[in-house]
Amino acid sequence: MSDDLSLQMNALGAAARVAARAIREASTEAKNAALLAAAAALRTRKGEILAANDEDMAAARERGLSNAMLDRLMLDGKRVEAMAQGVEAIAALADPVGRELARWTRPNGLDIARVATPIGVIGIIYESRPNVTADAAALCLKSGNAVILRGGSESARSSAAILAALREGLADAGLPAEIVQLVPTTDRAAVGLLLQGLNGSVDLIIPRGGKSLVARVQNEARVPVLAHLEGICHTYIDAAADPDKARAVTVNAKMRRTGICGATETLLIDRGVAKELVVQILDDLAAKGCEIRADDAVWALYPAAKPASEEDWRTEYLDAIISVKLVDGVEEAIAHIEKYGSHHTEAIITEDRLAAERFLDGIDSAIVLWNASTQFADGGEFGMGAEIGIGTGKLHARGPVGVEQLCTFKYVVRGNGQTRP
Amino acid sequence: MSDDLSLQMNALGAAARVAARAIREASTEAKNAALLAAAAALRTRKGEILAANDEDMAAARERGLSNAMLDRLMLDGKRVEAMAQGVEAIAALADPVGRELARWTRPNGLDIARVATPIGVIGIIYESRPNVTADAAALCLKSGNAVILRGGSESARSSAAILAALREGLADAGLPAEIVQLVPTTDRAAVGLLLQGLNGSVDLIIPRGGKSLVARVQNEARVPVLAHLEGICHTYIDAAADPDKARAVTVNAKMRRTGICGATETLLIDRGVAKELVVQILDDLAAKGCEIRADDAVWALYPAAKPASEEDWRTEYLDAIISVKLVDGVEEAIAHIEKYGSHHTEAIITEDRLAAERFLDGIDSAIVLWNASTQFADGGEFGMGAEIGIGTGKLHARGPVGVEQLCTFKYVVRGNGQTRP
Repeated sequence: MSDDLSLQMNALGAAARVAARAIREASTEAKNAALLAAAAALRTRKGEILAANDEDMAAARERGLSNAMLDRLMLDGKRVEAMAQGVEAIAALADPVGRELARWTRPNGLDIARVATPIGVIGIIYESRPNVTADAAALCLKSGNAVILRGGSESARSSAAILAALREGLADAGLPAEIVQLVPTTDRAAVGLLLQGLNGSVDLIIPRGGKSLVARVQNEARVPVLAHLEGICHTYIDAAADPDKARAVTVNAKMRRTGICGATETLLIDRGVAKELVVQILDDLAAKGCEIRADDAVWALYPAAKPASEEDWRTEYLDAIISVKLVDGVEEAIAHIEKYGSHHTEAIITEDRLAAERFLDGIDSAIVLWNASTQFADGGEFGMGAEIGIGTGKLHARGPVGVEQLCTFKYVVRGNGQTRP
Repeated sequence: MSDDLSLQMNALGAAARVAARAIREASTEAKNAALLAAAAALRTRKGEILAANDEDMAAARERGLSNAMLDRLMLDGKRVEAMAQGVEAIAALADPVGRELARWTRPNGLDIARVATPIGVIGIIYESRPNVTADAAALCLKSGNAVILRGGSESARSSAAILAALREGLADAGLPAEIVQLVPTTDRAAVGLLLQGLNGSVDLIIPRGGKSLVARVQNEARVPVLAHLEGICHTYIDAAADPDKARAVTVNAKMRRTGICGATETLLIDRGVAKELVVQILDDLAAKGCEIRADDAVWALYPAAKPASEEDWRTEYLDAIISVKLVDGVEEAIAHIEKYGSHHTEAIITEDRLAAERFLDGIDSAIVLWNASTQFADGGEFGMGAEIGIGTGKLHARGPVGVEQLCTFKYVVRGNGQTRP
């Protein structure tokens, strides 16, 4: 690693630290003005952004990127407009900074308040989608944080063009440009330096991408990481399930969108569920184009299924495939999920209140649902606005990470001369 | 590192993971029964504990440990009784698990609750004080977590005797012994394995000790760390300070106890404060045996002071020494604290509400106080009961870490068949 790179990255960190103070103290009005001006600039600069994206796309085609990758990288007028609207939606959220989270008075008269404050400098490492540049920057800005973005090298030109629009918004509101910075090199060593924290300038790293990226970040980071790992989500159909709810919820949980982390990957069915309902549900899935991978007991009821292997229970397909297993009631469902799940999102379908409460209590996942689709695992659906991902770790934030979760807190204590005995 | 050690430590982790499920689901009554029985066992086993401690003390003397270290290691009847009372006080706290932290209903009828849950398996690495074995284990047990303790090698026999009492309490309440485990070797490589997370079995590491321990943990850990770094705490006396409050609070903040992390280390005084008051305050401190290290401006007012060097502003003395500096108002006080502080605890003394609010808002520390002593930085003083330390990081928990902060949360979503559009 060159000394130059190290100097350059440390300068980036130092600039972020200074900018963090400015955005931490910025008024709600200034932050919203910056976001609305940035949205407007995304629209007026659409031509530039699309031209930069054309260059990225041409280079990506030359490098032989897959069609799926190319689709993620591609921008058009509609996607730029969606980005601008996303930034406007973040401007419309309540300011998470300064919220009083709790307040109480001690017998000695000390008045103690827990107040939400920004985290400081957040490093976000992501892959090819250039819209993350706008989303992530807007979420950080709204929550009073400075951000250092490191997108995929294939989207570097698109991200730089988007950054220019965001900075036009900051300038418009009189806020420093360094609130939003892009790592100015595609050198992978720069990511290593970012993960080391740039001499104490980085408070938090958020990786947004596939397993290998998250694993590298967790292994190399010397600063706290808010990781969103895979979602091996389960739907469990209890013996006391309402058949219509079971059918509707299961198809939605698996097939509404198969590529999102809240999609159900494994269906657990209580042995007490009527054979006809099991067949009906699997027929519903198959009719939508879903491949069924079944254990022996399910296969005996539904011979069109393929056999499931041990590996299937551990797999996040992100595709039109589902693994299906019969279990002996809620306790075996809980035990299966504990053994194979990823602590993301799990649902029980039942009309039996006790079974439901046992499942909701016994499952140690970020989100547990009763009679609802696992695809509700989403900050927007929770009413939290845009999110940066679904946290599967246990510290700081679990589940959807929106602007409130991008804050920390401090204690503000007001007295009248108290001393400690 | 031997394969044997690795196998042994992984077995410890696996046992903790199993025990974590038991304590997570334990009732409030069972947890409290275990704690009260453990307190009773600490009393009935006092003879064994003191005999074990005698052996530790003899070995420590042979190794030539300092008197301060020996005092930290030493147990007597009074200290064992204090340990038992500490465990009883933790039993008396409200159960932090299952608290509903928030609840709301979405337009589609989904009822969403954020509910406090245990973190899982917590590794605690500490130094010589054997009472930490009882405190830390009791805090983890109350908050529904399994714990792996790794105390200083010099206190190994004392800790093992304390562990036996704690496990008597667990057995009494029908809870598995593995809820509380001690690393069964003083091999330093075992700490390295614990910091790697024991094959995914450890959810959180809490280091409790000096700078070098915390630095090692932050550098080597591959799981989240809740660190409590040093407390370079400031008291700022504003021009509008009430003289009596300024005197009383400053002496208390520095001299009540000098060895705790909430002790004030640097005194900042506005240039507008009357010379007589400055002299009075420094005389008060000197009368209590405090060494004054002053910048040139303070020295001009108080020639008995020693000169402060740049290094003094960055030093946590934990001793009867204070560094003192004159500043130009609240903004320079904030800038000084931002540059030299450790984001722990800072206080302003003033009758000027605007200056106070500016300070409380402008300082980015875990705890900020107005007209009160920095020595209030303590979970007990906050009404949170016993604490494991004062967190100075920004993620998860900042400030006092008590039983509520040893919890995470999950979202419990109740529906009636909702599917996502």
